[in-house]
Amino acid sequence: MKDFIIKGQVLDSAGPELLRCRENSYIVVTEGLCRGVFPLVPEQYAGLPVTDFGTGMILPGMSDLHLHAAQFGFRGLGMDMELLDWLERYTFPEEARFSDLRYAEQAYSGFVSLLRRSCTTRAAVFASVHREATLLLMEKLEASGLRCYVGKVNMDRNCPDYIREPDAQSALRDTEEWILQAQSFAHTKPILTPRFIPTCSDPLMRGLKELQRKYALPTQSHLSENYGEIAWVRELSPDAAHYGDAYARFGMFGGDHPCIMAHCVHSGEEELELIRRNGVFIAHSPESNMNLASGVAPVSRYLSLGLRVGLASDLAGGSSENMLRAMTHAIQASKLRWRLADQEVKPLSLEQAFWMATAGGGAFFGKVGRFEPGFALDAVVLDDSSLSTPRPLRLRDRLERAVYLADERHITAKFVDGVRLF
Amino acid sequence: MKDFIIKGQVLDSAGPELLRCRENSYIVVTEGLCRGVFPLVPEQYAGLPVTDFGTGMILPGMSDLHLHAAQFGFRGLGMDMELLDWLERYTFPEEARFSDLRYAEQAYSGFVSLLRRSCTTRAAVFASVHREATLLLMEKLEASGLRCYVGKVNMDRNCPDYIREPDAQSALRDTEEWILQAQSFAHTKPILTPRFIPTCSDPLMRGLKELQRKYALPTQSHLSENYGEIAWVRELSPDAAHYGDAYARFGMFGGDHPCIMAHCVHSGEEELELIRRNGVFIAHSPESNMNLASGVAPVSRYLSLGLRVGLASDLAGGSSENMLRAMTHAIQASKLRWRLADQEVKPLSLEQAFWMATAGGGAFFGKVGRFEPGFALDAVVLDDSSLSTPRPLRLRDRLERAVYLADERHITAKFVDGVRLF
Repeated sequence: MKDFIIKGQVLDSAGPELLRCRENSYIVVTEGLCRGVFPLVPEQYAGLPVTDFGTGMILPGMSDLHLHAAQFGFRGLGMDMELLDWLERYTFPEEARFSDLRYAEQAYSGFVSLLRRSCTTRAAVFASVHREATLLLMEKLEASGLRCYVGKVNMDRNCPDYIREPDAQSALRDTEEWILQAQSFAHTKPILTPRFIPTCSDPLMRGLKELQRKYALPTQSHLSENYGEIAWVRELSPDAAHYGDAYARFGMFGGDHPCIMAHCVHSGEEELELIRRNGVFIAHSPESNMNLASGVAPVSRYLSLGLRVGLASDLAGGSSENMLRAMTHAIQASKLRWRLADQEVKPLSLEQAFWMATAGGGAFFGKVGRFEPGFALDAVVLDDSSLSTPRPLRLRDRLERAVYLADERHITAKFVDGVRLF
Repeated sequence: MKDFIIKGQVLDSAGPELLRCRENSYIVVTEGLCRGVFPLVPEQYAGLPVTDFGTGMILPGMSDLHLHAAQFGFRGLGMDMELLDWLERYTFPEEARFSDLRYAEQAYSGFVSLLRRSCTTRAAVFASVHREATLLLMEKLEASGLRCYVGKVNMDRNCPDYIREPDAQSALRDTEEWILQAQSFAHTKPILTPRFIPTCSDPLMRGLKELQRKYALPTQSHLSENYGEIAWVRELSPDAAHYGDAYARFGMFGGDHPCIMAHCVHSGEEELELIRRNGVFIAHSPESNMNLASGVAPVSRYLSLGLRVGLASDLAGGSSENMLRAMTHAIQASKLRWRLADQEVKPLSLEQAFWMATAGGGAFFGKVGRFEPGFALDAVVLDDSSLSTPRPLRLRDRLERAVYLADERHITAKFVDGVRLF
């Protein structure tokens, strides 16, 4: 099952600015791992079954580094506010519904089926504060064949009663129970998820660090997304050198354990230096940052500093789970940032956006996001023949056009971790 | 054929900021014109056939005030340049292909079938300099049932030989011949189309004005899109008070005849005042203005000044013909403009974007874009049931979600000028 060959027009990133296009090539897979891309089948693999996708483009599966499954119910809605008001008005009331497992069942079914059909093969997902609903989501993701980290959200202050964990102690007890129950999944893994500094007390953060040590778990949270939010963190954590430091002083900012911070729109130099030093992954969420009028992260600068940057849909700050749209939005937002605010930071290229969506974010999940020997075989096959054109296109141009115009209709096959989903 | 009733969830604009939602309502149509929207069928219309679209949303057909049919071949491509380089590198070579009628046949077939399936019912379309290919496009648009203005492009300077009209005189002769030949179409009308000031000599502009007087034709062109372009116009027309004045001194800037100017991203106060006085329609093209890093027009200010603003896809500066995407892009770009550059101009609301796409642009075509008595019946029916959600949505929310997420798959019926296309 995990030993096979696929043939087609193979595209992946050889570096943050380097797109690699290999026409009519064979990707050899054994034990679920890529063994290389070849113009002809090497003799030693001659016996493996070959699936020929013809003119189809074979791309690495994409990694969505930040999205909220419990916000699926209002995707494409409530786009008229900035972050903090948006949380109070739309997000918390929606997430509160996940105390009802019937509602969770319906919402998470819709969410998982959307994600399964998309270009996304790996994702770092926020659920809600509810342990049982989070386990239900994990069950569905496990069954989907996708490879996800899922976080039961923690918040024990500064949010409405109806969604707040009563205190740090009970939050931590509940979280530990969730971690233990989540061990039953082979491919769907727990990730510690303090929502963000404003909703997490010091005792909660300290307790999460203990859980991290005890169970060796990664973390995910939000960072420097919105001016109001940043000012609030400064009030709440007056001793922290910067927003990132408000996590770091609890040891919850990468370093010893992997960490994703979503947004980093307004990170200062010190914060960026700590991100770099601790190997924190930045989840760039361009559509969400437009919809909530947060701003635009200077992403091409982050890439040139060698920071680890992946791309994210941030459903439902973003309306679409489609990572091709996230690429488009990243490029478009970077152009407006360049035009309107700062000509020192160059707009993103197609190559850079593609890198972030595949190799950049994939690195969080291990050897993922490129067709290199030893990498997990995550791939999507795009058939763009329905995007009619009166003239022949080079492979690179076909990719660019698909990034702007394709969606799940054009995905004809999908492989995750060496297994074909459809 | 043109007397009937359609029933469904009816949405239209009652004003630039006022969305009108009428549930389970009947739109009565006689002689192709809307006679009103009613909660029950009025007695006098009791005999008319009723088509019930159930929970489907019935929206006014949308007007795309600016797009380039001859750029269909590279939609979604070549997004790495600003306007003037982009014209030289991608646009002119592509438009040159339309000297070949076989190529035009293929490209325009694809373009028209795309437009026919979209939310667009009316459009102001640029073709290329080629008379015969332009007539071919008009023939196809006429057959499609859409209602379009189409322009044979004029340019007799500052562009490559292979695409330049040899001189003003022959350009004008060719244009007049095209105008006469275009009289054969009932619903597809010619519109004078000097590409933009840099490519149009003074004699050409003077001659176009004469043709305008002789045949009572509207005009369309480009205005204040890009800094480099604006500086170039200043060099070429040193006596003009502003870019708009470079058209106005030939009488080609609204006033006596209808006029569309695409972009107006960087229009100054004097130019805006002339736009207002002359009733020039602004074709706001947000995706194109992002892709070519042109900037963001302060659209909500234009609306509050009472200017006539419609929305445009600007294919292929924009990648998508989908006017729902143009609305999304308009809102998103306006938020980044607010965040990054100018907090004096408020971001666009859903209501404003919807107004521009329907009533705002529709006004260029007459009584179009609203379900008011006496208005042409242009409508699209959206079935959003495949956009799954775990909870019931109000009609306004269904519209917002569709604006972010729907595409031609969700259009189940389309009416143009009282005739059902599908």
